Amino acid sequence: MITLPKLARPRRLLAADEANKPTSQVLRFGPDKPLKLDAGVDLAPFQIAYQTYGTLNEARSNAVLVCHALTGDQHAANTHPVTGKDGWWDVLIGPGKIVDTNRFFVICSNVIGGCLGSTGPASINPSTGKPYGLDLPVITIPDMVRAQSMLVDHFGIDQLFCVIGGSMGGMQVLEWAASHPKRVFSALPIATGPRHSSQNIAFNEVGRQAVMADPDWCGGKYIEEDKRPEKGLAVARMAAHITYLSEAALHRKFGRNLQDRSQLTFGFDADFQIESYLRHQGMTFVDRFDANSYLYMTRAMDYFDLAADHDGRLADAFAGTSTRFCLVSFTSDWLFPTSESRSVVHALNAAGASVSFVEIETDRGHDAFLLDEPELFAAINGFISSAARAYGLPEAVQ
Amino acid sequence: MITLPKLARPRRLLAADEANKPTSQVLRFGPDKPLKLDAGVDLAPFQIAYQTYGTLNEARSNAVLVCHALTGDQHAANTHPVTGKDGWWDVLIGPGKIVDTNRFFVICSNVIGGCLGSTGPASINPSTGKPYGLDLPVITIPDMVRAQSMLVDHFGIDQLFCVIGGSMGGMQVLEWAASHPKRVFSALPIATGPRHSSQNIAFNEVGRQAVMADPDWCGGKYIEEDKRPEKGLAVARMAAHITYLSEAALHRKFGRNLQDRSQLTFGFDADFQIESYLRHQGMTFVDRFDANSYLYMTRAMDYFDLAADHDGRLADAFAGTSTRFCLVSFTSDWLFPTSESRSVVHALNAAGASVSFVEIETDRGHDAFLLDEPELFAAINGFISSAARAYGLPEAVQ
Repeated sequence: MITLPKLARPRRLLAADEANKPTSQVLRFGPDKPLKLDAGVDLAPFQIAYQTYGTLNEARSNAVLVCHALTGDQHAANTHPVTGKDGWWDVLIGPGKIVDTNRFFVICSNVIGGCLGSTGPASINPSTGKPYGLDLPVITIPDMVRAQSMLVDHFGIDQLFCVIGGSMGGMQVLEWAASHPKRVFSALPIATGPRHSSQNIAFNEVGRQAVMADPDWCGGKYIEEDKRPEKGLAVARMAAHITYLSEAALHRKFGRNLQDRSQLTFGFDADFQIESYLRHQGMTFVDRFDANSYLYMTRAMDYFDLAADHDGRLADAFAGTSTRFCLVSFTSDWLFPTSESRSVVHALNAAGASVSFVEIETDRGHDAFLLDEPELFAAINGFISSAARAYGLPEAVQ
Repeated sequence: MITLPKLARPRRLLAADEANKPTSQVLRFGPDKPLKLDAGVDLAPFQIAYQTYGTLNEARSNAVLVCHALTGDQHAANTHPVTGKDGWWDVLIGPGKIVDTNRFFVICSNVIGGCLGSTGPASINPSTGKPYGLDLPVITIPDMVRAQSMLVDHFGIDQLFCVIGGSMGGMQVLEWAASHPKRVFSALPIATGPRHSSQNIAFNEVGRQAVMADPDWCGGKYIEEDKRPEKGLAVARMAAHITYLSEAALHRKFGRNLQDRSQLTFGFDADFQIESYLRHQGMTFVDRFDANSYLYMTRAMDYFDLAADHDGRLADAFAGTSTRFCLVSFTSDWLFPTSESRSVVHALNAAGASVSFVEIETDRGHDAFLLDEPELFAAINGFISSAARAYGLPEAVQ
């Protein structure tokens, strides 16, 4: 059984601390600037927490928008305020790195519905004075992008040089290109697809049910009740984590190796290393993520269906686009297999778009987009360098 | 959120009713006939609940032992006492069917550790007068087979004509052939493997954690506490169920179809058919299965490693065997992919065994072994007919 570490701190959501007192920069919109949600209602007031890296040039032409994945956040290239770890894309973004902050102005914002400072279910609902919980309307990928576009407006940026992201971040990239084609010079969707598959919805539903089965979820009002549905959220994370890795990588890394012992215990402790690893993934996740945000993020992914928004024709989502695209998939990614990226490539070809496509041979599964994967870096570097030349951006200031 | 149906009956484990007052035939062993467990202890007294179909011939040469899978039971070809549904292999076993009960004497017993009448965690521990719960030693696949061999002894059967089973049942078939080679004339392991992979252990661990995270699990003592960890067990079943199906079949059957509605609800109800389907799978499972048995069954699968029991050489498990084998796998089974069956075939070839192997093209995933799959039936029919001729068994009495 997962034994969660005793917390020395008060029983409060750590993510909720960040949700309501973020250590990031925050852009606030009042009642006069509501966020129009696909659910058919206006969200107001609302706020966007974000990080930037590098300097916006005078022409405001060197902006790269980075979109985060399901459990990611705005801390792409700085120390994470809750975990103390490096940013989730620190391998890629920074001075002299592939997304070179000596050259580009990088923006990464917490998505709406998230839990690190942008308005989400842990935020205070102004009409009740209590956390939203499930009273926050369901958030969609287009809603997230709509909020990001208001942040981009705030910087006075007409056109983003590049929008980049993996997984749910890649969905946002596709949505940006579809809904704001003139504002995106180049787009780099990685390990993603134009819709969530039945199997992916199924895994997300298991995760949601695991959270909601936890009595400490309290119908979504756990913050008010001073509780945390840690066990349910840990189980959800464990199930999801399996889908981020490939069978081959699990076999290579863990196989049937035993944990700290020479033989089976004939009990229900974590005999196998893979069990310990998964339990650790579950335990560490609950401190940095809000359970209700997990419900909202998974729902946003399930609802995403770019073709459906265009009468079932994916090519129509990109009609007349002048954005340059590069799609990347990984051979061992079974959450977003190459066929998903290829369907986008076909649609882009049908729409006459400029598109390149790289399928990378790796056994590291879906999570490869977050790892130090040389072929991925080479693909991103080649695409960004070429696009920057075409865009007339000067080389990096050394 | 899963809303479990209100039960008209008292809050007792239905599976536990069967565990302690089975409607099947029961073979009981007293303290003088303990079951020697791999955990290093003797289980005594213990009992085996079983069903038989057809008639044992005078030579006692027409017996077919059917081994059930993780959540299966002895009710292979009769109406299930809890669900009222047909037996789980009713499509295959019966008069005039492929496993023809006019010809063969079919035995199917509930495995040790199960919950339909054989000794398991819901059974009364004679030393305490209370249900075993987690005080039952961990049960292994060899333990299950050892108990089955005592049942076969009871019938005075020296050699089984055939041992057949899928998934965990297939593991038992392999174990029978390895540990009792002279008692098995022919063996038919379907959709199985010689060991549980890291990914399979991972999914099982998620299921166990889901059960143990449910406060109604009560440290395994829920029967004493008059509770049932229904929500946790339902989540475990949902996660496992995804692995029984293929992505292609999910796409074909459910896709992104909505449930009883024309548009998304922007909420957390079951919008998609796949969500309703999974919730239904979870809800109906908890009535017919005991949560602790689920822990024991998954553990037995995780522990199975036939090569490890023979110094890492799988071929040595079958050294000198004269059993005829037929292995069957399914192209879309990602729980036990064809490579697992092939590794057994290679080992059998190395051991000089008689072996045939059929990989069946289907999109129905792991569960194909339970379905009306014509190619599977043809393979089983061909193998059994040929083996029966070689064994000198008369044709069926019409």
